[in-house]
Amino acid sequence: MSLVFYSRSDDPEPWRAAIAAAVPDLEFRVDPDIGNPADVHYALVWKPPQGWLAQFPNLRAILSLGAGVDALLEDPQLPHVPLTRMVDAGMGRQMAEYAAHAVLHFHRHMPRYAEHQRVARWAPLEPVAARDFAVGFMGLGVLGAQAAQLVAALGYPVLGWSRTPKSLPGVEGFAGDRGLAAFLARTRVLVNFLPLTDATRGIIDARLLAGLPRGAFVVNPARGGHVVERDLLAALDSGHIAGAMLDVFETEPLPAEHPFWKHPSVVVTPHVAAVTQAADAASQVIDNLLRLERGEAPVGVVDRGAGY
Amino acid sequence: MSLVFYSRSDDPEPWRAAIAAAVPDLEFRVDPDIGNPADVHYALVWKPPQGWLAQFPNLRAILSLGAGVDALLEDPQLPHVPLTRMVDAGMGRQMAEYAAHAVLHFHRHMPRYAEHQRVARWAPLEPVAARDFAVGFMGLGVLGAQAAQLVAALGYPVLGWSRTPKSLPGVEGFAGDRGLAAFLARTRVLVNFLPLTDATRGIIDARLLAGLPRGAFVVNPARGGHVVERDLLAALDSGHIAGAMLDVFETEPLPAEHPFWKHPSVVVTPHVAAVTQAADAASQVIDNLLRLERGEAPVGVVDRGAGY
Repeated sequence: MSLVFYSRSDDPEPWRAAIAAAVPDLEFRVDPDIGNPADVHYALVWKPPQGWLAQFPNLRAILSLGAGVDALLEDPQLPHVPLTRMVDAGMGRQMAEYAAHAVLHFHRHMPRYAEHQRVARWAPLEPVAARDFAVGFMGLGVLGAQAAQLVAALGYPVLGWSRTPKSLPGVEGFAGDRGLAAFLARTRVLVNFLPLTDATRGIIDARLLAGLPRGAFVVNPARGGHVVERDLLAALDSGHIAGAMLDVFETEPLPAEHPFWKHPSVVVTPHVAAVTQAADAASQVIDNLLRLERGEAPVGVVDRGAGY
Repeated sequence: MSLVFYSRSDDPEPWRAAIAAAVPDLEFRVDPDIGNPADVHYALVWKPPQGWLAQFPNLRAILSLGAGVDALLEDPQLPHVPLTRMVDAGMGRQMAEYAAHAVLHFHRHMPRYAEHQRVARWAPLEPVAARDFAVGFMGLGVLGAQAAQLVAALGYPVLGWSRTPKSLPGVEGFAGDRGLAAFLARTRVLVNFLPLTDATRGIIDARLLAGLPRGAFVVNPARGGHVVERDLLAALDSGHIAGAMLDVFETEPLPAEHPFWKHPSVVVTPHVAAVTQAADAASQVIDNLLRLERGEAPVGVVDRGAGY
């Protein structure tokens, strides 16, 4: 019985060590040394090439190393076995930190003070009370809900928008197409935690941005495909959107000539809002491997119809 | 019966309106239109010139518009009447936000990503788990304690150092000269919330900074006089201190030629970590005026021996 590991951005060794300690009879193989494909029962993967998973005839489950499975679901040959995604607390924590930092950074005028610092200008700006700085989260899944609750604990009014109505303590809920306009109108910082699906691709476009109040901010730690980048640039250039903090992009790494790099109102981070770390995530993968070996259902199974 | 208002940085009008509504028989005078000094029973002030308060022979109390009263206590002619300082929740909130932002900013490598952005460099850095990033607060008064507890709620290990031992939930306490070395050795970000007194002036000097681990960060939203600026610059230049976020300075406004402005590892903000706002603070002043009129002790009275 074997597990095959595929990732171009994760070190396999911590995974090998953690899994060997917990499931010693499971052979750990790393692409391209996959051995006999017929031995492979489990695949632990991040963005394998399309068709790569189809070579294992006895695959029992695919375990994604990340929270987003949009790249996997685009594989027309994706085997019809349970597909799980990472829902570990370490990623939720990191995402919540990223969101909290972005909210505080914009609320406390930090980009403008940085501009002033470059020209040695001492100029206190009018403070904005946290109670007047509502934060709107799009997407209230595991990651979005955790970030929303941390930002609420910081004292900000928190709004949440989701496809279907959700109730979270401290979060004022809005849902569906009908709830979107009211949600946007009150949002001073929009934080995107949606999954990337056919329904959400390009959702942050000119029309959505126009629904935010003038001077609002946009934070995207989810997927580049959610944002129509030229629409966001136009809204930043017009001043309708006052700033953006972006961790993900249509093309990654962000090309050196992309206007986001030099835009004075954009903070670029290189897809680091949440990084799966073996120490935090291994226990979840191991739990799922043990469940599968016992014939039980794994946790974090993706609903392929919904796309997450 | 009159109250006299003095500040070169606060608008008197919101104060006039709030106090008139609550204490209608109290005449509100604004410097320099102080009328007959013998009518003045209360002074609501921010940094009046030395000797200015001595002109009111019937003064019953001095109410500071800020939390720091070090400038008032340096006045050799300061009248011997109760002196209160601002301890309102609005300032505590703002200070806690400033501290939380600084901690997240340094923990999540934001200054380095900003450097990378300037040269369009996509380079994910090794993440640091929050549990490995202990935050050390010097000073656990009203403001320090509130900030420490917010940072603890973000999931960071929090250490607290104070002159006398203090016990706060979620904060590992250290006290006095004997506790300082152990406190510093485990601190990854030092956040200063001490009052400025003879005992704390220049406390953040070369010796204290050398006690922090290499690569630590310094955050100062308290008073410029706590920091020996040339020592901090030397520690930043040597790389022993990896970065600083400074809101207060020995001389304010920070002179245009000061090296902090252009230092790549320093974030300068113009004394805005917490700004007393009439809406948040007026209720505290009014409560004290009503207490004084009833012959009761006001709250937030400064211990002139301790200096805060």
